[in-house]
Amino acid sequence: MDKPFSIGVDLGGTNLRVASVTRDGRIIEKIKISSTGDIVNSLITCIDRVFSSDIKGIGLAIAGVIDVENKSITSCPNLRILEDMEIVKIISTRFNVPVFLENDAYVATLGESVAGVGRQFNSFVLLTLGTGIGGGVIYNKSPLKIAAELGHIIVEVGGRRCGCGSLGCLEAQASARAMVEIATEGIKGGRATVMMGHAGGQYHTVLPADIYKYALEGDTFAIEILKNAGRYLGAGIASFISIFSPQAVILTGGLTGAWDIYVQEAIKLASENSFKELFAKTQIIRSSLGDDAGLIGAACLTYSK
Amino acid sequence: MDKPFSIGVDLGGTNLRVASVTRDGRIIEKIKISSTGDIVNSLITCIDRVFSSDIKGIGLAIAGVIDVENKSITSCPNLRILEDMEIVKIISTRFNVPVFLENDAYVATLGESVAGVGRQFNSFVLLTLGTGIGGGVIYNKSPLKIAAELGHIIVEVGGRRCGCGSLGCLEAQASARAMVEIATEGIKGGRATVMMGHAGGQYHTVLPADIYKYALEGDTFAIEILKNAGRYLGAGIASFISIFSPQAVILTGGLTGAWDIYVQEAIKLASENSFKELFAKTQIIRSSLGDDAGLIGAACLTYSK
Repeated sequence: MDKPFSIGVDLGGTNLRVASVTRDGRIIEKIKISSTGDIVNSLITCIDRVFSSDIKGIGLAIAGVIDVENKSITSCPNLRILEDMEIVKIISTRFNVPVFLENDAYVATLGESVAGVGRQFNSFVLLTLGTGIGGGVIYNKSPLKIAAELGHIIVEVGGRRCGCGSLGCLEAQASARAMVEIATEGIKGGRATVMMGHAGGQYHTVLPADIYKYALEGDTFAIEILKNAGRYLGAGIASFISIFSPQAVILTGGLTGAWDIYVQEAIKLASENSFKELFAKTQIIRSSLGDDAGLIGAACLTYSK
Repeated sequence: MDKPFSIGVDLGGTNLRVASVTRDGRIIEKIKISSTGDIVNSLITCIDRVFSSDIKGIGLAIAGVIDVENKSITSCPNLRILEDMEIVKIISTRFNVPVFLENDAYVATLGESVAGVGRQFNSFVLLTLGTGIGGGVIYNKSPLKIAAELGHIIVEVGGRRCGCGSLGCLEAQASARAMVEIATEGIKGGRATVMMGHAGGQYHTVLPADIYKYALEGDTFAIEILKNAGRYLGAGIASFISIFSPQAVILTGGLTGAWDIYVQEAIKLASENSFKELFAKTQIIRSSLGDDAGLIGAACLTYSK
């Protein structure tokens, strides 16, 4: 079972990541390069390096809206160039194997269900907590083919403006990007915080990890930012529990690093704001695959059809 | 096809309702009586009146949390007496046909998909807008077997207290009960409104239909109540669109009578706060069956297994 079976490609992050994966969802070889420059050439070079005669197909994960039936990209805000490109055709012609295309949160969910901590559950909700917030839903062991734009539910009517144009999305209230913006706005507005002196006064360079560090050091504003964001995340988790009654909510992405404040506050709010019987049946846990979930899930696209 | 095939029972409302239904989901005979008094005796009497040798099964719809596998009622706040009763066993022993049990919003969704406006869609979200708010989700032509407590998503963190114990549920912010409470609180708090003089000063008897009537007559506070509730409903609808990307959101229940203010405000907010491509693909429409959806859906339980 150590032979590679398919290739997973994750174009969702700031890096282009490619891996050869076995039939049972284990990564054999993994490559990561920056996704700036000529993306198609980089992609072909990377795939070529892990390609072999054993490879039965290639799966591509994209951060954006995918038209799965037409194998085309409806919208890809971070890599606009892909929108006008028949990327599936280009790759399948070059490597002569079937090529599949899906949303990156969808494939992360699939990967987690095939090879991660999600294997033990018939149903779970995955949330990717980073610069943005995404997600997917496993129901009866398979991903639901729905938009699952879980980061864009409205948790605050008339709230903060989201990148998507709406007001008060979960992503606008609880993502890493939101926390950095709230920190910057607060400092500009005169909030007393040690973050003001970050990097010799370059407070606009503060990262989510910095906010967490300052919070651990006792900075009131930093704690407030993480807790408020956590409360909105908790509202989202409570809503997903009320809707899907999943066996688990699996959390992944950089913000899980702030588990002790951000995620704990979310769990507290969710526990107080969902049906007791449903909450009691839901495990809220960390992904076991991290970034690999997307690579494995993308590779799985080739054998889940 | 005009022969009765099964019986649907709806115990979800203030009345006990029973109907004989054809195999293709048409009601032949329908009975309605008050659900006070000895509920089991009333139930048996009503079923008996529409029962015949053609009847292949009976479906019961209950407003509460159902343990479908064990055919038992986990929680039924409006008819607590049913919680300690083996109602399925009682009815199946008495009539000697299979008896099924489901949540009332679930069966309304099933009914709408079998015999209502939902027939034309592969996927839709149904919302029952009344004293409380419930719902169900059709995916690939079948109801998702999830909690679908759509009225209990959190639309206002730290908002109004819901009957379920949470703060800021959709039901606590946008249901008929919420609107009446907000009206009463406002009048007590000194808000200028003609509702103060309702029924000769008996303002606590004001009904949602009265609030709508006063709003149409131009009462500012009545308009504000309906529009605010509508905005929260819109946040819910936007969230369901972002999650499920349904072909339709179907609205039913008494509050659809206030369509021009309440639902219109909801549609406006949802249109501004969901992905344009997803919103454009979603029809927001009225149920074609109204209260009959539950009866038909309950009857359908007998042949959807």
